[in-house]
Amino acid sequence: MAADNAAAGCVLCREAGGLPVWQGAQLRVIRAQEEGFPAFYRVIWTAHVAELSDLSDADRNTCMAVVAAVERVLRERLAPTKINLAALGNMVAHLHWHVIARYDWDSHFPASVWASPLRARDLAREAQLQHELAACDAAIAQALAGWA
Amino acid sequence: MAADNAAAGCVLCREAGGLPVWQGAQLRVIRAQEEGFPAFYRVIWTAHVAELSDLSDADRNTCMAVVAAVERVLRERLAPTKINLAALGNMVAHLHWHVIARYDWDSHFPASVWASPLRARDLAREAQLQHELAACDAAIAQALAGWA
Repeated sequence: MAADNAAAGCVLCREAGGLPVWQGAQLRVIRAQEEGFPAFYRVIWTAHVAELSDLSDADRNTCMAVVAAVERVLRERLAPTKINLAALGNMVAHLHWHVIARYDWDSHFPASVWASPLRARDLAREAQLQHELAACDAAIAQALAGWA
Repeated sequence: MAADNAAAGCVLCREAGGLPVWQGAQLRVIRAQEEGFPAFYRVIWTAHVAELSDLSDADRNTCMAVVAAVERVLRERLAPTKINLAALGNMVAHLHWHVIARYDWDSHFPASVWASPLRARDLAREAQLQHELAACDAAIAQALAGWA
């Protein structure tokens, strides 16, 4: 069903979309490189669908179980102030979830990462967080190892 | 288990949080009043939990099924360019999903509703959309009527 699974010109059909963390049969987890937000992960559905409600109930449950698993690892390993979840897709209409560890010291908190910054970046704390990410990636891959 | 279900000072424990659209045993749907985005709904979990991963698997599936049901009605009734879903909670750390019908003519598209505007609001089109919302609210309530 290639026609269902890839759309011409879609960057998330063509590329990993970030640093590969885990690959499953139906979806993958990558770590994004978004300036100012080191612990920014994405859960990307493999087939080219635009909206969450394009998935069957079973597929939606799978997708959100993986989102929650990533979230859980971020909470355990990185102790964020808050997790932010979002599926927007206004730019790339291919279902992907942003899973972002937010901190009260980050440049935008409590505003969204898409808003204007509220303060300067804390590069020392960002570097400290960056230092935890390889282990966090590994913990996500381990948490999802049982998945198809 | 009152201690699990309400937190002192939490506005979403105390108030509906918008125009009531549907009330279930574990969660509710409201329509928000956010300037420039008439079709802005929220799915609010009743118990005071901060993160999606605080829910059991069954509760998470219920929560996301309701989010998807609201999304489906918005797509069918309002033909948006894109649906935006987000659970941020940086301001109010009580699990609530933003379910927003976005249009290529809205003031921020394709940026997020939390970003800076890209163009002036189209008040005529907003008014036209506003005119559809009572029927949309009713369709959401009907779609969820079978839920506990």
